[in-house]
Amino acid sequence: MISVVIIGSGNVATHLAATFLKVDTIAMTQINSRNLNSIPPADVTIIAVSDNAISEVSSKITNSFVVHTSGSVTMDALKNTGSKGVFYPLQSFSKEKTVDFTQIPFCLEAENKDDLSKLETLVSVLNGKIYHINSEQRKSIHVAAVFVNNFTNHMYTIADDICKQYDVPFEILTPLIEETSLKIKNLSPKEAQTGPAKRNDTETIQNHLNLLSRAQQDIYLKITQSILDYGKKL
Amino acid sequence: MISVVIIGSGNVATHLAATFLKVDTIAMTQINSRNLNSIPPADVTIIAVSDNAISEVSSKITNSFVVHTSGSVTMDALKNTGSKGVFYPLQSFSKEKTVDFTQIPFCLEAENKDDLSKLETLVSVLNGKIYHINSEQRKSIHVAAVFVNNFTNHMYTIADDICKQYDVPFEILTPLIEETSLKIKNLSPKEAQTGPAKRNDTETIQNHLNLLSRAQQDIYLKITQSILDYGKKL
Repeated sequence: MISVVIIGSGNVATHLAATFLKVDTIAMTQINSRNLNSIPPADVTIIAVSDNAISEVSSKITNSFVVHTSGSVTMDALKNTGSKGVFYPLQSFSKEKTVDFTQIPFCLEAENKDDLSKLETLVSVLNGKIYHINSEQRKSIHVAAVFVNNFTNHMYTIADDICKQYDVPFEILTPLIEETSLKIKNLSPKEAQTGPAKRNDTETIQNHLNLLSRAQQDIYLKITQSILDYGKKL
Repeated sequence: MISVVIIGSGNVATHLAATFLKVDTIAMTQINSRNLNSIPPADVTIIAVSDNAISEVSSKITNSFVVHTSGSVTMDALKNTGSKGVFYPLQSFSKEKTVDFTQIPFCLEAENKDDLSKLETLVSVLNGKIYHINSEQRKSIHVAAVFVNNFTNHMYTIADDICKQYDVPFEILTPLIEETSLKIKNLSPKEAQTGPAKRNDTETIQNHLNLLSRAQQDIYLKITQSILDYGKKL
């Protein structure tokens, strides 16, 4: 039996707590961060609060081993007196959707092997994937995640706008979107790159620009130039 | 029985031909575009050649109904004497990977109902999805496809570069990439948007910029600004 306390009430806290509660070998307590004077002792205390609250919340916890769940905050930001660690699930969480942690990568960091093995146990019961990642690497993963998640989603937003403009249903693009995301399981992104920018097909690029609004042209040109520049680097 | 001739030897021609060959109710002939003097008659003649060859190739064909497969070329670009149409499968094709046409959207256009229904029959036997799309709409779809496919793939390329720079395996991002692509089946891209740009979290944005090369910073800032601008439009 391993005892876990989760502090926080956001998406990550809620999804982790809901999943741990279903596991027989875990004793789970979830606590609101306004309730820090009544924290029970636990093998692992998980702080899942907003990045800028991590230091303050952790400073009030006397439990033996405290971790946070953030991609962009170093382990040293924890101000508890006991030992420290990081338990960062690399996935996009939203309120509406239940999370299947199976195969989700967990970036783990701890000050010693015993603590690390506790975190590994938690990932195992969630059927997640274990990665040992230090604080600097984790920050870089967080930036890379912005590109593949936030920025990619913005590409979808612009496409959606173009579809609306020409009275085309956006759903027509979903098979292509899915194929694009699956392709890079077998090919590197550089190998998977296609399109007018990759071919430097200036005629098609000009035809595309003619269909776009000023703001859309702006971003189209910027990314096209970036693809061309990356092509030269190969 | 419906007879089909496919002209061309590229990815689209090859995948379409391979699939039609397996269908009992279709009589299929595939012909190289250098072989235009020996084209048999057919119910549907499909020109699957590069965009800039469509006019010339079509001008040499006397068959009754000729279509091209391009997203960015108007129906009028066909120069055959018979009737014209478009049969544009909206998917990313590559040599290495077999294509499952099930659920793939086909953008159809024709000059009359009889011809359109022949194209609909072909889509049905492929188990694809039928969309009636005129030439202007199809061009807009082609641009939108550049955003969700080529530009999204470039986001993956930059993320891959960041991972290499910090010695992190790119595969750690694949579950997030997949989730990002699946999310917009239930949410509009605008609703699905998250991240520091959406929240205008200038501290995290600055931390991210500190980790990036000059060229990466440049594109990060551009897309961040675009997300901020789109946020204001809501």
